[in-house]
Amino acid sequence: MKFKKYDKTSNISYTFGQFPTIELIESEKSKLIALILHEKLVITPEIENLIEYAKKRNIEVIKSSRQIEVLGGKENCFLVGVFEKYTEKIDNGNHIVLVSPSDSGNLGTIIRTMLGRNIKNLAIIKNGKNTKNALELAKNNTSIDIFSPKVIRASMGSIFKIKVQVFDSFDEYEKSFSANKKYAFCLQTDHFLDSMEQSYKDNFSLVFGNESTGLPDSIANKCQKIKIAQTTDIDSFNLAISVGMAIFSFTKNNLEINNERK
Amino acid sequence: MKFKKYDKTSNISYTFGQFPTIELIESEKSKLIALILHEKLVITPEIENLIEYAKKRNIEVIKSSRQIEVLGGKENCFLVGVFEKYTEKIDNGNHIVLVSPSDSGNLGTIIRTMLGRNIKNLAIIKNGKNTKNALELAKNNTSIDIFSPKVIRASMGSIFKIKVQVFDSFDEYEKSFSANKKYAFCLQTDHFLDSMEQSYKDNFSLVFGNESTGLPDSIANKCQKIKIAQTTDIDSFNLAISVGMAIFSFTKNNLEINNERK
Repeated sequence: MKFKKYDKTSNISYTFGQFPTIELIESEKSKLIALILHEKLVITPEIENLIEYAKKRNIEVIKSSRQIEVLGGKENCFLVGVFEKYTEKIDNGNHIVLVSPSDSGNLGTIIRTMLGRNIKNLAIIKNGKNTKNALELAKNNTSIDIFSPKVIRASMGSIFKIKVQVFDSFDEYEKSFSANKKYAFCLQTDHFLDSMEQSYKDNFSLVFGNESTGLPDSIANKCQKIKIAQTTDIDSFNLAISVGMAIFSFTKNNLEINNERK
Repeated sequence: MKFKKYDKTSNISYTFGQFPTIELIESEKSKLIALILHEKLVITPEIENLIEYAKKRNIEVIKSSRQIEVLGGKENCFLVGVFEKYTEKIDNGNHIVLVSPSDSGNLGTIIRTMLGRNIKNLAIIKNGKNTKNALELAKNNTSIDIFSPKVIRASMGSIFKIKVQVFDSFDEYEKSFSANKKYAFCLQTDHFLDSMEQSYKDNFSLVFGNESTGLPDSIANKCQKIKIAQTTDIDSFNLAISVGMAIFSFTKNNLEINNERK
């Protein structure tokens, strides 16, 4: 079977490299369709396990360097997993909420950060309307693709260990999780993350807007607004950095993060 | 005059877009050599100022869409600044120290984060020897290029508002800034950023290793080691995220960050 370069309208995607492929299988979230091996692949015990896993389940194992090149694998990528995209529902708990994110690298990095601080549910709001930039947002909205290989790569496979659910609107999300205390990260407030008390009794939702257009007021007004203190030398922090600082601050007293932690 | 696609061995580099070009000029760190304009460029008052600035100083203003394409400008980049690379020395104060960083996007994002939290000095250590991965590090070392257009783009021009100095070794850095209290971010310690007291009398240096190979023990052992608490589900945080969390935490009580802050 031959596979084509990734296309977001297709119902299959790819994991490039051994680790995301193992994460995919261990998560049991999706069926592995095929395993593609490069001729330069060194067969370690882990790789042997992967191949055995595939063969036992009658999953196709293809030896084709050309196929990996066609799919756009980078220089040192010698193994590709082919899998079916899936949908899932997020659970009750602490959430990150991204409204119309547009950068795949940021999205993957955010997912990896979440997993590292034990936040396992990500809500993506497709339609963060902002009348000022309706056109740009419309463009961004259509480009959200959580299974893009770029997202998977930047997440280092973490995407298979957390839950991601896409909502059509913030209202739809809010109806399902009305009990969560919602914090909107924006610049128009005097309430600083830097001076917040570190105790959160309720589950929290940390809500962030699009990289260029920010968070629409219509959404921010439904939340407790928070600002990360910054100099006026920059317009704003990179989205993944803002999320990282916020996650660090909100999970500071969560002792479950590190088992070894005293 | 015709310019070639960026080459790190050359002594010139490029700013893609209006904002980094303005930051470059305002910083007065380097001489602008030329301004290249795309035919699709809309002449706003800011752009008009830029062109006037160039003409007054006999700086070449080139109208050539083709030139911008040759240089690798992205779709919506209609203005390019050509400038001479420069060297500078960092000042006394708080520092970020990156040992053999290898990812241009991370480097730019870190610079933008520093500026946003008022840390204006970045030391880059070229030679972070790590016997385990000497070969890979050697490769990384040669690839450090602070003036790569990728770094400038990810920094959004912030690179012109902070000072960056490259040191051959950590020892060389240490000799110049022995009074700074040095914190090494690594995994082999029980001292957590999460539980640190937020008062730092001395200037601090936050020291981070390479994206893949981490910080060599030889360097970490010369500093106070700190770990950012994380689950064992991930190997480590993305480098820019680690730096972001650390910067947030270390500058939390720095009221100068935001003038409007109460």
